[in-house]
Amino acid sequence: MERIVIAFGGNALLRSGDKATYEIQLKRATDAFDRLTRVIENNEVVISHGNGPQVGGILLQNEASKNITPSLPLHACGAMSQGLIGEILLNAFDSVRTRNGIEKSASVIVTRTLVDKDDQAFKNPTKPIGPFYKKEEAEELARINGWKVKEEKGKGYRRLVASPQPIDIIEKPAIVSLLKSGILPIASGGGGIPVFRTEGGFEGADAVIDKDLASSFLASTLRAQRFVILTDVENVILDFGTSSERKLGNLKVGELEKYYNEGHFPSGSMGPKVRAVIEFVKKTGGNASIGSLDYAESVVNGESGTKVMPN
Amino acid sequence: MERIVIAFGGNALLRSGDKATYEIQLKRATDAFDRLTRVIENNEVVISHGNGPQVGGILLQNEASKNITPSLPLHACGAMSQGLIGEILLNAFDSVRTRNGIEKSASVIVTRTLVDKDDQAFKNPTKPIGPFYKKEEAEELARINGWKVKEEKGKGYRRLVASPQPIDIIEKPAIVSLLKSGILPIASGGGGIPVFRTEGGFEGADAVIDKDLASSFLASTLRAQRFVILTDVENVILDFGTSSERKLGNLKVGELEKYYNEGHFPSGSMGPKVRAVIEFVKKTGGNASIGSLDYAESVVNGESGTKVMPN
Repeated sequence: MERIVIAFGGNALLRSGDKATYEIQLKRATDAFDRLTRVIENNEVVISHGNGPQVGGILLQNEASKNITPSLPLHACGAMSQGLIGEILLNAFDSVRTRNGIEKSASVIVTRTLVDKDDQAFKNPTKPIGPFYKKEEAEELARINGWKVKEEKGKGYRRLVASPQPIDIIEKPAIVSLLKSGILPIASGGGGIPVFRTEGGFEGADAVIDKDLASSFLASTLRAQRFVILTDVENVILDFGTSSERKLGNLKVGELEKYYNEGHFPSGSMGPKVRAVIEFVKKTGGNASIGSLDYAESVVNGESGTKVMPN
Repeated sequence: MERIVIAFGGNALLRSGDKATYEIQLKRATDAFDRLTRVIENNEVVISHGNGPQVGGILLQNEASKNITPSLPLHACGAMSQGLIGEILLNAFDSVRTRNGIEKSASVIVTRTLVDKDDQAFKNPTKPIGPFYKKEEAEELARINGWKVKEEKGKGYRRLVASPQPIDIIEKPAIVSLLKSGILPIASGGGGIPVFRTEGGFEGADAVIDKDLASSFLASTLRAQRFVILTDVENVILDFGTSSERKLGNLKVGELEKYYNEGHFPSGSMGPKVRAVIEFVKKTGGNASIGSLDYAESVVNGESGTKVMPN
C-alpha cells in the first residue's frame, strides 16, 4: 500500500467536443474512476483535479448577469467550481464503488492554497481567464478594476491573472484526517483557492494556481510515495511534431530536467506537468508518472506512460 | 466538552438590506464566528448553514446565461453554493482564529443529504426557487422541463420544487473523521445536496431540503448533545403579532410540540425551526435552542433564547 496523489486532467470531466453539461461530466468522471478501482482499493489515494472549463463557465455567468446579481471574485468562482466538480466526482465515485463493491468512501475538502503576495507572477500576470471583450470594454474594465488585459488575435481581449507558486495547503490537516480514516480525499480542485496570508488570517487572491504544480505540492506535502498526472497523452514526448519525435518511457529525473531546461516542453501544456513531476521527485525521492487517463491503472503502476525516478 | 451542532441562519452571511457581495458576506461571517470563539474552543462543534440568497444568485446567473454556457441542475447549483459559502466561512473563521489564538482549524465538507424518491413532497412541490418569469415563459419552461410553476401576485411566476425529508447524511464518515481529529467541520450547507439512492449509487435530486431540518438530522446522526439554531430573533414567540404575544424561554419538548400542533408557527419561517428542535430533542434526549446570532454564546450556553429540554 502506497500513498498516491493522482491529478485528473481536464479529460476526466470533459473530452474534446463535449458540451460542459452536468450529465456529460458525470459520465466522464465515472469512466475515469472505473479505471482506478483496484488502485483506490489497495492504496491511500488522494484525487486532485482541474477546473478550467468549469470556472470559465462560472465567469461567463458572472459576467452575463453582473447587472442583476453581484459578481463574485475569481477566487470565489474557484471555490464554486470545487463544489460543482466535487459533487460530480462524489456521485461518479459512488456509482463505481457500488458496482464494484468497494468499501472506501470519498469526500471533497474545499481546499485553499497559500500563495505569496511578493510572488513575481503578480508583477507579470500571464494566465488568460474569463470571457473575451471588445477593445473599449476591456480597457474600461482594466481601468475600473486594475486588471491587466491582452488581445488574442481575432478573438478579442481577455483578462490576465497571475499564476503564482503554491507554498502551503491550508486544509492539509483535514486531508490527513480523512486519509487516516480510510477515506479517499478529493482536494486542491483547480489548483486550490488561492489565498494570501494576512496579518489577520487569509484573504482570497485573484490568481490561478497551475493545477499540476498545486497537485505536485500537495503530493510532497502529504509525503506521498507516488505522484501521477493522468492526461490525454500516453507519454511525454521529445521533439514533438518533428521527424525526430520520441516518447519518453522510464527515466531519471536529472535527464528529464535537462530536457525541460532545453525548452522541449511548451509552457501552455506539457511544460507545467513536466515541471510538476520534476519538483515532486527531487523534493521527495519518490517517483512520478505522466500518462493517459485511458490506461490509468497501468500508468499508476508504472507500466505505461512516462515514469520519472530519482537520480 | 459537548458535541454541538450549530445551524447558522441566513443572517450569519447577509443581514436585511445587504447586497450579496463577497465582502459583506465575509464581514458578516466574521462577526458570527467572533461571537462563538469560546464555544468553539471548548466543544466539539459542527457548523451548518443556509444558502437561500446565494443559490438564488447562482440560479439567476444560470438563467441569464443559458444561451452561452450550459445551465446546471439545481442540485449542482447547491453544490456550488457550498463551495462559495465554504470559502467565506473558512476565511472568516481563520481571521477570528488568528486574532484570538485559537488552535482549532475548520474544514468544509461538500455534503450530500439522502432523500427518498417516494417522499410525498415530490408529489406536491411547494418551495419557490430561482428567478421570476412571465406567464408564457413559465408555461413554456414547465412544459419543456416538467417543472411545476406558481404565480406570486404582482411579481410573476416561479418554479416550485419539492422540500423532502432528510434521511441520511452521505458524508457522515468524513464529518466524524474531522471531529476526531479536533477539526471544526462545516457541513450540510443549504440543507445538503439532495440525492436519491439509485441501483448504482446516488443521483442528484432537484429539491431543496429545509436547512433547519437537515441540521437537526445532522445533529441527531452525529449524536450531538446539543443542537442550536442561531437566527434573527431572540426567542420563539407564541401568538406572534397579537396583544397576547409572549416569548418562550426554557420549556419541555412536549409543551413546544403542543404549540406546534396548534399551528402557532408559520410554515415559511419559525415552523421548520421549531419542528427541527422538536425532532432533535425527541430523537436524542439532548436539548436544543433557538435564539439570536447576536447573543450566540449565551444561546449555546442556554442562558438566552428558547431552550427545549426532554420531557
